[in-house]
This record gives sequence, structure tokens and C-alpha cells, in this order.
Amino acid sequence: MAEKMGSLHDLLVKDLNDLYSAENQVVKALPKMQKAASSETLQGYFEHHLEETKEQLGRLDQVFKHLGEKPSGKKCMGMEGLIEEGAEVIGLKGDSATKDAALIAAAQKVEHYEIAAYGTLATYAKMLGDTASARLLAQTLKQEKQTNDKLTDLAERQVNREAIA
Amino acid sequence: MAEKMGSLHDLLVKDLNDLYSAENQVVKALPKMQKAASSETLQGYFEHHLEETKEQLGRLDQVFKHLGEKPSGKKCMGMEGLIEEGAEVIGLKGDSATKDAALIAAAQKVEHYEIAAYGTLATYAKMLGDTASARLLAQTLKQEKQTNDKLTDLAERQVNREAIA
Repeated sequence: MAEKMGSLHDLLVKDLNDLYSAENQVVKALPKMQKAASSETLQGYFEHHLEETKEQLGRLDQVFKHLGEKPSGKKCMGMEGLIEEGAEVIGLKGDSATKDAALIAAAQKVEHYEIAAYGTLATYAKMLGDTASARLLAQTLKQEKQTNDKLTDLAERQVNREAIA
Repeated sequence: MAEKMGSLHDLLVKDLNDLYSAENQVVKALPKMQKAASSETLQGYFEHHLEETKEQLGRLDQVFKHLGEKPSGKKCMGMEGLIEEGAEVIGLKGDSATKDAALIAAAQKVEHYEIAAYGTLATYAKMLGDTASARLLAQTLKQEKQTNDKLTDLAERQVNREAIA
């Protein structure tokens, strides 16, 4: 059955549900990524990002409250595909630095999904005059961009170089 | 069966195959997005991006040639999920500006996937000393970023405002 979208408010709620499911999928995936990583720095990044993701879920809970809504429990299909792609990478055999490079690439696809999603949601909330929600969403957006930048830096500075050999 | 990754070169080939499948999925999805859009500007963007995506596939063909490889035909799971998410949006009923806003959000998730993927691949190619491939990949990366910026601008300047009412 097709969902009915009457206005930007409905779309904000729909996308908030998508992102809530997405973050919950990330919480389950990160310990597997951490276990599959060889670089201690990368393991530490995944561990740290798990804590951040839990905080981010807390912020989404607050946004639901501001909107007077509750999570619908609907599964986010986009993140499901990205996590499947990550699971393939977790299963890769071979050189450990190369596998770390692949784990970073998979994690950056997840980060970019979230950057797009939080960017859109923060804009909707701001346009709807819900400044408190917009601020919470922008706070997470900033964290996701920082995580992505840290991963790029680790890949270029160390992991990819080790994988060339 | 788990794939074996011996070095960054193998990973470049794997990710190139993923992206080739991803772009082919985008080519099939864009005409449906265009048909579902109400704003003529947005329809035009999707139409233009279809032509760009075909060019981008041509560049990926060239990168395969530089590497002495051929597309494996393996399906990209990450893009499959994003396209499913887009198909949900295409099926939405209700206000046309709100649906356009949702189409833009779905398209931006696709763009962000591609920004992550082309960024990673261009870095691998450069690190492996394949300057010609790196240049082709960077050229597409620039286009994807421009498409994403155009979509942000259209959403903030027009579509989201109409969807607030």
C-alpha cells in the first residue's frame, strides 16, 4: 500500500523513521566491522563510532518527541543494501591491509548515506520552524562528516599504502 | 564463496565492478524518477543526469580497459537497496511538491553513494600510479558533486518551500 504524503511534515516523519532504522542497523553492524579489521586504529574508530551512533539514536528519539511521534519500526531498505555490501567485505579473504581498505570504503558509503539523510532532515526541520530538532540533526551531521574525514585520512595516510605492496 | 583480495589492485577491480553495476541500475531508475516528478526543473535534471550517467559508464569502460579487465556482471547490493528506497518514493501518493522533495532526497542518497565510491576509486587508482584512470574517475566525481549541489539548491530554493504548505 502506498504511503500518503500530505506535506513536508509527513516526509520529515517518514525520513526520520528510515534513519532510525538505518542507525539501528549500523549499531548491529559496527561490532562485526571492528572484529573484521586488522588495524588497531581502525578497530578503535569503529568502537568509537558505535558509541557515537548510540548517542545519535538518542538524538533521533528526542526529535520523535518534538514531533509527537514514535518510531514505526519500518526497515530502511537503503541501509539494508549498504550493510549487505559491508557483509560481503567482512567475508573477504586475503591481505589484511587490503581488507582494512575495503572495510573503510564500505564504512564511508554508510557515512555518506547518513550525511545525505541528516542533511535533508535538518533542512526540513529548519524550514518547518522546528529549530530544536534542526539543531540536534545538524549536530549528528557534523559528527558523521568528521567520521568520514577520519576514515579518508586513515585510508590515504596508512591503510591504502600498506595494501599497495 | 569468499572473494580473495591480494592487494589494492584487486580491490580497485572489485569496486569498479560494483560501481559499474550501480551506474547501470541508475540508468534504469532515472527515467522512472523523471516520470514521477512534477517539477519541470526536476524532470530536466533527471533527464540530464541520465545522459551524464551514460557518459560515466563510458569512462568506467575506459578504466576497465586500462586495467585489462572486463565487467564481471556482479550486482551491486548497496545500490540495489538505494534503488528500492527510491521505488518506494516513486510509489508515494499525496501532494506533488512533497513527492518531488522525497524524489530529490532519494536521488541525493544515490549521489552520495557515488561520491563515496568514485572518491575511493580515484584514490586507489592514483596510489597505484594509474594517472589516466584516476583522472577519468575524478572527472565523474566532480559531476556527481555538481548534481548533488544542484539538487540541494532546487530543494531549498523551491521544492521544499512549496511542500511546507
